Amino acid sequence: MLKVPGLLAASFGLQLFLCSFFGPVEGGKVLVMPVDGSHWLSMKILVEELSQRGHEMVVLVPETSMLIQGSESYMARSFKVPYTKADLDGSMKKLRENIMREPEFSDLFENIIGLLSFTNMQVKGCESLLYNEALMQELREKRFDLMLTDPFLPCGPIISEAFSLPAVYFLRGLPCGLDLEAAQCPSPPSYVPRFFTDNTDVMTFPQRVQNVLMAGIEGIICKVLYTSFDELTSRYLKKDVSYRKVLQHAAIWLHRFDFTFEYPRPVMPNMVRIGGINCAKKKPLPADLEEFVEGSGDHGFIVFTLGSFVSELPESKTRELFNAFRQIPQRVLWRYTGVIPKDVPENVKLLKWLPQNDLLAHPKVKVFITHGGSHGIYEGICNGVPMVMIPLFGDQRDNVHRMVVRGVAESLTMYDLTTEKLLVALRKVLNEKSYREKITELSLIHRDRPIEPLDLAVFWSEFVMRNGGAEHLRPAAHTLNWVQYHSLDVVGFLLLVLAVVVFITVKTCAFCFRKCFRRTLKSKKE
Amino acid sequence: MLKVPGLLAASFGLQLFLCSFFGPVEGGKVLVMPVDGSHWLSMKILVEELSQRGHEMVVLVPETSMLIQGSESYMARSFKVPYTKADLDGSMKKLRENIMREPEFSDLFENIIGLLSFTNMQVKGCESLLYNEALMQELREKRFDLMLTDPFLPCGPIISEAFSLPAVYFLRGLPCGLDLEAAQCPSPPSYVPRFFTDNTDVMTFPQRVQNVLMAGIEGIICKVLYTSFDELTSRYLKKDVSYRKVLQHAAIWLHRFDFTFEYPRPVMPNMVRIGGINCAKKKPLPADLEEFVEGSGDHGFIVFTLGSFVSELPESKTRELFNAFRQIPQRVLWRYTGVIPKDVPENVKLLKWLPQNDLLAHPKVKVFITHGGSHGIYEGICNGVPMVMIPLFGDQRDNVHRMVVRGVAESLTMYDLTTEKLLVALRKVLNEKSYREKITELSLIHRDRPIEPLDLAVFWSEFVMRNGGAEHLRPAAHTLNWVQYHSLDVVGFLLLVLAVVVFITVKTCAFCFRKCFRRTLKSKKE
Repeated sequence: MLKVPGLLAASFGLQLFLCSFFGPVEGGKVLVMPVDGSHWLSMKILVEELSQRGHEMVVLVPETSMLIQGSESYMARSFKVPYTKADLDGSMKKLRENIMREPEFSDLFENIIGLLSFTNMQVKGCESLLYNEALMQELREKRFDLMLTDPFLPCGPIISEAFSLPAVYFLRGLPCGLDLEAAQCPSPPSYVPRFFTDNTDVMTFPQRVQNVLMAGIEGIICKVLYTSFDELTSRYLKKDVSYRKVLQHAAIWLHRFDFTFEYPRPVMPNMVRIGGINCAKKKPLPADLEEFVEGSGDHGFIVFTLGSFVSELPESKTRELFNAFRQIPQRVLWRYTGVIPKDVPENVKLLKWLPQNDLLAHPKVKVFITHGGSHGIYEGICNGVPMVMIPLFGDQRDNVHRMVVRGVAESLTMYDLTTEKLLVALRKVLNEKSYREKITELSLIHRDRPIEPLDLAVFWSEFVMRNGGAEHLRPAAHTLNWVQYHSLDVVGFLLLVLAVVVFITVKTCAFCFRKCFRRTLKSKKE
Repeated sequence: MLKVPGLLAASFGLQLFLCSFFGPVEGGKVLVMPVDGSHWLSMKILVEELSQRGHEMVVLVPETSMLIQGSESYMARSFKVPYTKADLDGSMKKLRENIMREPEFSDLFENIIGLLSFTNMQVKGCESLLYNEALMQELREKRFDLMLTDPFLPCGPIISEAFSLPAVYFLRGLPCGLDLEAAQCPSPPSYVPRFFTDNTDVMTFPQRVQNVLMAGIEGIICKVLYTSFDELTSRYLKKDVSYRKVLQHAAIWLHRFDFTFEYPRPVMPNMVRIGGINCAKKKPLPADLEEFVEGSGDHGFIVFTLGSFVSELPESKTRELFNAFRQIPQRVLWRYTGVIPKDVPENVKLLKWLPQNDLLAHPKVKVFITHGGSHGIYEGICNGVPMVMIPLFGDQRDNVHRMVVRGVAESLTMYDLTTEKLLVALRKVLNEKSYREKITELSLIHRDRPIEPLDLAVFWSEFVMRNGGAEHLRPAAHTLNWVQYHSLDVVGFLLLVLAVVVFITVKTCAFCFRKCFRRTLKSKKE
């Protein structure tokens, strides 16, 4: 009865065409301050799209960058940092080593310490950019119209504040929910699960207790985590202002999620959801890859990546994995940047780089083995590929938990990963229909949207350029402090009034009572 | 530097065209339960659009309807109601009489009583529909895919619950914020102004006290206002369920507002803003009107309507207005359905019906005199016409206040409206540039959106048909009661634990202290 007639429905599209009242902003100048690593990969898509629409894009790139490179579509402006590539690798190595350990409760603190060591190094880099007066003067004179930045690091927001530039923030979310706090977005701990709790949006009483406690702890973690951010912010801007206060000036928050991945929760008018922005554009596979995956026949193939962060695994771990792959009929494409190990099984192809999204869009793909970074997850959801997930650190365990709960993935842990465990998980996802059915359903809902995430991101970036911000979406809550926001002063005042009224009433009654009583006593005596 | 190149930008539109992944749903069956009067006027636009996209639209119409009529684009299914047109007019007359009185604090209660008398009559109508077993059976057998309804009256939501139909609610808002409550949408009284308070989103301490008190009173009003709704709901559905509980099953809330009119506030994922849906389609003016407004020359013309509710004014009031209009060079088009009075000034044309939106889109229009219904306000905003506003009842005073605060309108009161007062307001809005500038700015921001409200409404209606609801946008908060939602049980438990810990610590310390102290005493004695 109800039919979805497939791709590209002309009639709806044409209406959208007619309704686009305002067009591109011509010749906008955008300053881009990205965060290196996987964060850059999806921001780059927006940067390239804005460039293609005629905007001048200037991207600030630290000298020792991992993934950010020059391009035709934007001008990369490199800046000196006080750390070397070796320092960066060293800080990464520490995190990488932890991956092989058994997870413990102390992981929360390990995670924070790892994050602190990484961000502190980056903050140092940021500092040397901010105090590079020649470069800053040059940028200031450019008179940009917009700062597009990832607030995971403080540089972008601080520059936008210093230059009085309207800012568009591009992020998945900030540690300990600082983005929600800065956007004045309510986040009731009764049904919005906190990170590192393994809670879903439906919790038992003990889980809610844990969630409330974690919400409290987040406040303390926030203080520690953002100390160096706060210090740099107030020192550079020469006023007593926290990093959170600076973030409050966001014109638009472009959040890389939607509600096929996150649990439904309150949002604010200037929070725009662009989950799946990274799977917008698909290209055909290179000839050799196409041949490899086509050769997999009816069994199909598996895509295996552990993100840009993990280049290789210990030999023993690799052997376990190889042994598992030998026992399945599927071909395996594995992104592996280290030294190629011996005895690679015939059905396994190791590659230094994979066109991950294009591979996941291939009709013969059966399973996606991933560490559960938000980019990979969305490529899995967009293309409807069930997953076997091996979370490594940071938000990945929570990400994976969300997918497992939705019945579209199996989860494994790296420290105790064996041939058998991988085989059990793989065969479950390969053979039980429910995984494929549920991810297909999720994929359909994810793609069933009135406007594509990339177009939405472009629209709001240009909106901010056209209007110098998005003032009409800014809640007045920013003018209130915590006590005022929660009306605690008002409640206190009303309780005081009530107490006074009760006091006066009681006193008056007592007085009257005494008067009457005395009179009665008197008359009795008389 | 930044140029908006005018209407219809092909490049952005084309991208929107390409991004529309899913097309129209074919042959959906939609049951429509509208609310009579002005509420119907904008819902009708969506009903007609859905019909044009191939859906079968069945509209339930009470026998004694004010504005809902049959049409080619939908099937009107009439049902008997236990009141006559005279009864309806009588209940309206009472409200109309109040308009001429001086506003007082008791207006809040007058408003509620008026609303109660109107809704109680409508609830009776609803009851006779629900218990019309033949019709209900006929509808049930139709196997609809969607219930599109205005939850201002309980009939639609109750039927959708009884038929297990996914529901799309089309509304501006419900009295005492029942819609927000049912959608689990946070609404902090510290910066979200309550109705009938004249507060904005930035409040002084006394205003915040007033707002918090009003938020409390709303709870009580809610109880009174929705008593008959609750009673009918639980009686008909044969279970102990309140109207609010039934509303919680909404798949999508289509809210007829945006943040050029409302103050920015938290929203929920399944709340879609379609403010301005009523000014989507513009038609050329009829020849006689075109001639009249073109003849106004450089002075231009004024559009004057008091909504579908007020047909005529007392003679004395009309005289005051006529006297004012005689003293201005503009021509005036006045929607006036009563008996045409004597001495109509030459520059004034009275008409039983006006193509309001088309007139407001005319380049020669100077001012819009309106009662401040949300439909009229959006037509004013869409077309960028400054307003002189005369609020009459209900939410209109609050609506008008919002516009006055934004500097795009002057406000008057009907009870003490004189020639002089109208002239002062009119001349201010006509001659001071700021009104025109500010409404133009508001209009530009309102129309600067990635997708038109009508397309958004169509998309989400079809989404619900395609997917049998919008489960992925439904917050888990619905599973919690008030105490759980606010984590009061968790806080209580944690306080208890704290108390026990403190108690045990104190007791242990006291015990140790006594032990040590005694020993010291003993040894001293010895």
